Amino acid sequence: MATAGVAVANGSGGADTTAAFKEIYSKLKEEMLEDPAFEFTDESLQWIDRMVDYNVLGGKCNRGLSVIDSYKILKGVDVLSKEETFLACTLGWCIEWLQAYFLVLDDIMDNSQTRRGQPCWFRVPQVGLIAVNDGIILRNHISRILQRHFKGKPYYVDLIDLFNEVEFKTASGQLLDLITTHEGEKDLSKYNLTIHRRIVQYKTAYYSFYLPVACALLLAGENLDNFGDVKNILVEMGTYFQVQDDYLDCFGDPEFIGKIGTDIEDFKCSWLVVQALERADEDQKRILFENYGKSEPACVAKVKDLYKELNLEEVFHEYEKESYSKLIADIETQPNKAVQTVLKSFLHKIYKRDK
Amino acid sequence: MATAGVAVANGSGGADTTAAFKEIYSKLKEEMLEDPAFEFTDESLQWIDRMVDYNVLGGKCNRGLSVIDSYKILKGVDVLSKEETFLACTLGWCIEWLQAYFLVLDDIMDNSQTRRGQPCWFRVPQVGLIAVNDGIILRNHISRILQRHFKGKPYYVDLIDLFNEVEFKTASGQLLDLITTHEGEKDLSKYNLTIHRRIVQYKTAYYSFYLPVACALLLAGENLDNFGDVKNILVEMGTYFQVQDDYLDCFGDPEFIGKIGTDIEDFKCSWLVVQALERADEDQKRILFENYGKSEPACVAKVKDLYKELNLEEVFHEYEKESYSKLIADIETQPNKAVQTVLKSFLHKIYKRDK
Repeated sequence: MATAGVAVANGSGGADTTAAFKEIYSKLKEEMLEDPAFEFTDESLQWIDRMVDYNVLGGKCNRGLSVIDSYKILKGVDVLSKEETFLACTLGWCIEWLQAYFLVLDDIMDNSQTRRGQPCWFRVPQVGLIAVNDGIILRNHISRILQRHFKGKPYYVDLIDLFNEVEFKTASGQLLDLITTHEGEKDLSKYNLTIHRRIVQYKTAYYSFYLPVACALLLAGENLDNFGDVKNILVEMGTYFQVQDDYLDCFGDPEFIGKIGTDIEDFKCSWLVVQALERADEDQKRILFENYGKSEPACVAKVKDLYKELNLEEVFHEYEKESYSKLIADIETQPNKAVQTVLKSFLHKIYKRDK
Repeated sequence: MATAGVAVANGSGGADTTAAFKEIYSKLKEEMLEDPAFEFTDESLQWIDRMVDYNVLGGKCNRGLSVIDSYKILKGVDVLSKEETFLACTLGWCIEWLQAYFLVLDDIMDNSQTRRGQPCWFRVPQVGLIAVNDGIILRNHISRILQRHFKGKPYYVDLIDLFNEVEFKTASGQLLDLITTHEGEKDLSKYNLTIHRRIVQYKTAYYSFYLPVACALLLAGENLDNFGDVKNILVEMGTYFQVQDDYLDCFGDPEFIGKIGTDIEDFKCSWLVVQALERADEDQKRILFENYGKSEPACVAKVKDLYKELNLEEVFHEYEKESYSKLIADIETQPNKAVQTVLKSFLHKIYKRDK
């Protein structure tokens, strides 16, 4: 699957929240440029300034904004104090920084062309593989931000441990994706539902779905050890989200999504090809093995025809319906009503999305 | 300058220390392979196992071993308890893991061929740019190790903050090096003593010299805020060490050092070229501008001749003598005798080294 470029939790944050969130970005970036831990030269200062803008901005910020939304729900208020707004937005931006870090490096590893409607950072003239170090710096900014604004809070250690654990899970998921998808010969027989699920869970779900809510919980003074079920539900939701992404890559409207899917050409371990492999007879399997991962339009068309023949659209809609019911049932077993509301709000932002 | 591939603090660790240190590596790696935070597949397990061995081992481990040496001196004992040995070795290995992480990524960015006598990790067949993610995983292992073995210690947060700050300084130094050395046109006029010093300090000195001692201090229950001078002295020593490295790259004996220097061909911001620029008249500057950074042996020879003409060997020996006196004087102002011993032991391991 592609690293989810489609919005997570569409529609997060009202206009006010979004405005407050954007404002805090400037402050955080300014602090990074004045960090006393490094003696910047003019050139390195300009580099970081441009690099951070280029990579952290330009997305929809749904992950970041959902920290604020979740926190408000957990606190049961519509309006946060100035201090609370600042802290929630700051954690939200840490997630956006994390996302930027992953995307900069993923694009290098995937040899991608564009990201968020502009050339990938490493493709910018004079950047090239310096982008590897820029990715590292983006990750380091998170530690700097957390230290500056959360050191001394009772949950400071938990925050650091959380970001570290989520980063480790994401990098491990990325490894699994890379060695399954990229390494060695293109070999469809490596693809199956178990591996697809594991890649998706680790590579996408933890940081996109669990992390924002976990940040909000810590900010609200909760102990994450008491929220194991919440973690599982959010990871499940993230898996469902990525399956949608895989589905839309082939069956979505490119005009509407804003990009043309290339999972078939790119030999991605997409939910669709995994489902096709599960359902195909010997002849159909041969078609898949012969045509999947080739850039010729005729090959892509053969794969798409097979997907239609195997009725994958319906398989998807069935999966979508079942996931939804299962998630709602799990959410409703949660003892804490505010937590239920947070989870349902996430789910309703993504259920039956078409972009 | 090249990322220091030459031994730091030659001669660290007696045979016993080295044996204990090596033994603990296996345990730490085993724990990484059994980390419950990720569900490994057989393939990803084998990948990590091989990747960690390939990149963490093979160096002289002087940075890692010096944690143990320093800690013994600080405690004033020759033998540590089993528990203390384990913790000191574990922190030592964290520094070796950090070094591995930097080297894996630096080699990609520098497009290097070999490292520690074998092909760079990204040049191993089937690895390629997956090495970017492997670098990240090595970094993440440090957080996992610290969490597993130090969470609950009173200095846990300080340890994490220390590794984070040192990593940030190193990545910032690397950026400075990259944009000064690699980015855009080769332009010698960007090189001067100030920039050389700043790159060396941040890119090498903090993690190679300050970090091992800082780890030992934390382990000994000290507060790093009280050791600002020690930090400065170690960073100064690290700078001196890298200047030696730059000097040996050109004037060292390749047979003895174990590698053939290519700083001139590689257009490195070496201490030598910076000194040459300071001392050259207009004609000599022209020779530098025309020949530095070219791989033709005739060009390299012209640069080397100029270095000799400008008496850089003597300039270096003068610098070496002065640095030494200055460092000894600074060390002797330290109120704590054990700290003095640690610092002198570091200095004597590197002073007048010839490899």
